[in-house]
Amino acid sequence: MSKIERVGVALDSNLLAEFDQLIRSKGYPNRSEAVRDLIRAKLTETALEVPDAYAIGSVFLVYDHHEAKVAEQLTHLQHTHLLTVIASIHVHLDHHNCLEVIVLKGRVAEIQKLADQMTSLKGVKLGRLSLAAVACDHNHNH
Amino acid sequence: MSKIERVGVALDSNLLAEFDQLIRSKGYPNRSEAVRDLIRAKLTETALEVPDAYAIGSVFLVYDHHEAKVAEQLTHLQHTHLLTVIASIHVHLDHHNCLEVIVLKGRVAEIQKLADQMTSLKGVKLGRLSLAAVACDHNHNH
Amino acid sequence: MSKIERVGVALDSNLLAEFDQLIRSKGYPNRSEAVRDLIRAKLTETALEVPDAYAIGSVFLVYDHHEAKVAEQLTHLQHTHLLTVIASIHVHLDHHNCLEVIVLKGRVAEIQKLADQMTSLKGVKLGRLSLAAVACDHNHNH
Amino acid sequence: MSKIERVGVALDSNLLAEFDQLIRSKGYPNRSEAVRDLIRAKLTETALEVPDAYAIGSVFLVYDHHEAKVAEQLTHLQHTHLLTVIASIHVHLDHHNCLEVIVLKGRVAEIQKLADQMTSLKGVKLGRLSLAAVACDHNHNH
Repeated sequence: MSKIERVGVALDSNLLAEFDQLIRSKGYPNRSEAVRDLIRAKLTETALEVPDAYAIGSVFLVYDHHEAKVAEQLTHLQHTHLLTVIASIHVHLDHHNCLEVIVLKGRVAEIQKLADQMTSLKGVKLGRLSLAAVACDHNHNH
Repeated sequence: MSKIERVGVALDSNLLAEFDQLIRSKGYPNRSEAVRDLIRAKLTETALEVPDAYAIGSVFLVYDHHEAKVAEQLTHLQHTHLLTVIASIHVHLDHHNCLEVIVLKGRVAEIQKLADQMTSLKGVKLGRLSLAAVACDHNHNH
Repeated sequence: MSKIERVGVALDSNLLAEFDQLIRSKGYPNRSEAVRDLIRAKLTETALEVPDAYAIGSVFLVYDHHEAKVAEQLTHLQHTHLLTVIASIHVHLDHHNCLEVIVLKGRVAEIQKLADQMTSLKGVKLGRLSLAAVACDHNHNH
Repeated sequence: MSKIERVGVALDSNLLAEFDQLIRSKGYPNRSEAVRDLIRAKLTETALEVPDAYAIGSVFLVYDHHEAKVAEQLTHLQHTHLLTVIASIHVHLDHHNCLEVIVLKGRVAEIQKLADQMTSLKGVKLGRLSLAAVACDHNHNH
């Protein structure tokens, strides 16, 4: 089991004053939590540079549901990737546009490829991918 | 109603050959769709620089549900922002970690502020925000 | 004059082990320097969101010097912005292509505008802008 | 030798109107140049994902020249990488701070490593790397 360690960090007083102001404006409860978030963000960014790393991701898609077949093609892509697609949200934005957010699990390169396939469909207007590195999942069927 | 226009673009043959290769690797059905995606991505990036612009967003959060009160605080933040939170997905990643993806609608600055408040909670390990600009929503209560 | 303060940060031992590995791979001399860099990067990113903030920037441009007038237009843009352009480097990349890196000082919005004007010139193939927030410069003529 | 080809792109009239407005605000002379820039930016972004690809880069460093040895260490790093460092600019920002912009040529992974070593030096407050993919350089000594 992991335990908590206390690390001392030397900071110039001006830098510390600016950091404390940022911490307040972002709503952090204390400095430790803010530093931990910076460290975790850097670690996950580095981990995701490895195409074979495991990750959880969400694909954020805006599309025109009047466009023939885009909904059908999105469903098809999700069903042919049953191992990686976990869940999705569908939101009606206006008369034309839908938002679909699809949560995926797998290797970074696989998730990026599926996200590319979805984003490049005719009718999909915008695609964005968010990723977080996760520990290797031994139950993941590969 | 909008109609389709055809625009001619002059491209060096080498640049066109490289672009065609990218189009194939990303899975685009044709050049027009690939160019439209580039244009839309640039437009939405520019639109989102304005804090007052309307947007749809998803906040992607990884958190430790053993951390006292993080789930409760996330729920509380969503309920005190009823106007902007539309829906959410919750996924169990492993013994410790959960993923929550929360879809929000509102002005860019409001969404960013709420995303900051969620990301800075103790127990939340990673926060990522995806945004798309949307047309002004006249039914949005402000 | 600023002095050095020592701040204690509580870290889970697993997170600390991963951070120590990152520190070694990036070549940091110690944890304090790595944490300071994370804090400074976040502070400058936040400061640069304000269009009126003062900044130092470099515009990184790849262009085809055979393209009529691009060099002349770049020189013209620099000379009509004498207040902001500090210095530049010019590098011959190959028979066609040059790299020009131009260092600018001024308000974020002004630097971005000049960088846009340079990037959009016919013959300029790629433009990238790097920015760092600087303290307000009272000698800057506005 | 490369020649110019003309490609037709089908665009919804609303999307075209928004694009034309962006083109004007960025200062592009015409639509073709704006589309070419979008294509080139996407191509270079994709090319740079390959660690072995050749690139030209600039490292943008803000550092405190009062910090013992940082200037000396930066010079040392540049001299031990003679193959890749092409040129540099040095600018005095204020009593404490200097900007140094260093232009480098080599493989993406090599440039990133050297940029990391420079950024992680004690006294260096901020490091940013800009990269452009270049055609393989057969005269590059490896």
